Formats: sequence, C-alpha cells, structure tokens
Amino acid sequence: MEQKIRLAIDMDEVLADTIDKFIEVYRQDHQTEILLEEMSGKEFHELLPDTLNDSWRTYVNAPGFFRDLKVMPGAQDVVKELCTKYDVYVVSAAMEFKNSLVDKLDWLGDHFPYIGWKNIIFCGNKIVDVGIMIDDRIRNFAGFQGRPILFSSPHNHFVTEYERANNWAEIADKLL
Amino acid sequence: MEQKIRLAIDMDEVLADTIDKFIEVYRQDHQTEILLEEMSGKEFHELLPDTLNDSWRTYVNAPGFFRDLKVMPGAQDVVKELCTKYDVYVVSAAMEFKNSLVDKLDWLGDHFPYIGWKNIIFCGNKIVDVGIMIDDRIRNFAGFQGRPILFSSPHNHFVTEYERANNWAEIADKLL
Repeated sequence: MEQKIRLAIDMDEVLADTIDKFIEVYRQDHQTEILLEEMSGKEFHELLPDTLNDSWRTYVNAPGFFRDLKVMPGAQDVVKELCTKYDVYVVSAAMEFKNSLVDKLDWLGDHFPYIGWKNIIFCGNKIVDVGIMIDDRIRNFAGFQGRPILFSSPHNHFVTEYERANNWAEIADKLL
Repeated sequence: MEQKIRLAIDMDEVLADTIDKFIEVYRQDHQTEILLEEMSGKEFHELLPDTLNDSWRTYVNAPGFFRDLKVMPGAQDVVKELCTKYDVYVVSAAMEFKNSLVDKLDWLGDHFPYIGWKNIIFCGNKIVDVGIMIDDRIRNFAGFQGRPILFSSPHNHFVTEYERANNWAEIADKLL
C-alpha cells in the first residue's frame, strides 16, 4: 500500500474563524466596530483604539474563547475528502494559551470528528515532518522543506512569496 | 551561527515518573502492591488483577493525575545543559487524555521552566522533524529518520533493536 502524503492544516483563520469572534466580542463588549475591509495587511489588534490595545490577550486567555468559533466555509466537507487522499494532521500553535487547549480539542471533536487524537498536534514552533502545510502565518513556513500553501487571511494580504489559497474551494481544486 | 540540532524528549517515563504514581495509587486506593521487579517486558496494567484491569484509564483521564508526578532522577540538570547545545523540544503523546493537557503544561512550567511554550508539543503520532528523539516507546520511532534513543522503562526491557539509555546520566554521557 502506498503511503499517503502527510498534510498539516492550521486551525485559527484556516479551519476556525477567529477574526469573526474578535469582531463580535469587541462589538458587544466595547461598542467598537472593526471592519474586515480595514484589516488588509494588519493584525486585528493593530486596529483597536489605544485604550484597548492589549485587551485581546485577555480574550484569548479566557476559557471558552476558542470553543464556539464558526467553522470556515467549506472546511468540513473539503477536509473530510482530503482525509481519504492524505494523512491529515491538524497542527495548531495553541501552546501559548493554556486555556485554549481543551477548548480547541473539544471544538475539533464537534466539527471534525473524523480527525482522531493521533492526528492532532498542539505546539509552539511547527516542526512537523509533513509534505504539505496549509497555514495563514508565513512564520510557520520557516525552515519547512515541503509544499507550503498560504491560506488567505487579512493580515497576509500583501504577502506574495507563497502559493496561495483564498478559501477551501481553492484548496479542493489544488489538492483533490 | 550554526543551527542547533533539534532534540525531542518524551515526558512519561522519561522526564516524569508515571509508573511511580501508578504504583502509589493502586497501593493507596486498592491495597494492591505492584512491584517494579515484576514489570520487566510488561505494561503496568497487565500486572493488575482482573477486577482492576481497565481501572488505569479512569486514573489517567482524571484531572490532576499528571500534575504531581515525580521528576525522573537527574532529568532537570541534564535537560538544562542539553538546552545549551541542542534545540530541545518536549514532545508528549498527551492528546489521548484531554485532562492531561493543562496538567502536563503546568508540570513542565514547574520543573522545566527554561523550556518555553514554543518548544512544547502535545500530539498523538510523533511526526516531528528532529535530529534526535529520546523516548521509551518504540512505536514513536516508526518512520523516524533521525537518531532514536530508547529510554529504559520496565515495559521495553527486552527490546534490543535501539540505542539505549538507562537513565539521565547515560543521556548526558551520550549527548553532552
């Protein structure tokens, strides 16, 4: 039997819509409206008023923040199909935020139940031995010897050095 | 500057004395004495009486089980020195037991505070891109292209296929 190629898929901004949650909490808690259109080339927190500058850290450190994120459109169907062709791993740099670990694992269980615990990796640096990596952060491609695919997110809008997928339909076109 | 070789170090039975905890809880909770001498070539749970056969799963799934494990003798000093020569990662197959994640992270923070979150990996399959891997489970060496070092634990007593280290002093001799 031929060995399947290993495929690493990031969580935040790739499987899970973290920015949507940020927009929502700042709208609700601080009556601050951040528009997706303003975000090109910027991190979300760069758009916050000075008084709220570091408040995003409180949110991502709070239990529950990552538990109810929306799934990125199309991700569930495409990842399910990818699992038939590739050895799919979900690889998230979750280790910075202790309280995200269990939330992220539970979230994956709800929305991607066909990905078992053996194929989930929570880490800091993504030193994974895989053939293809789908990620929105180019820092995770540093030193990576395989095929990196940059998943579009507002903050990486102006990055031109990598093969890019704008959405899960484009991932399907490339990899299925 | 020369790039340091990446070194992956396992937690249970390598950094942390999980078997000691098992022996202790069965002594306390079930008045069952399991001796280290009986364990050669066997998993701990194989030595339990039939009536307690699956009870170990309840323990490892309980919050707190991994929080107060003893540190393996010599591990703290040797790992600290290894960090000066290698790019050290702690890699634990923690994902099977959801409640172990935060306990393991807190335990590392207490006993190995010099290992930052970027160098901690909780996973299932250990598909890490490292040069050296220290582990007590040979299944984690499957497909690994680097230098595997089998850390002695009763269950791997009769394994002869790998370079072996019996304790942290021997790791120091080999790698420092």
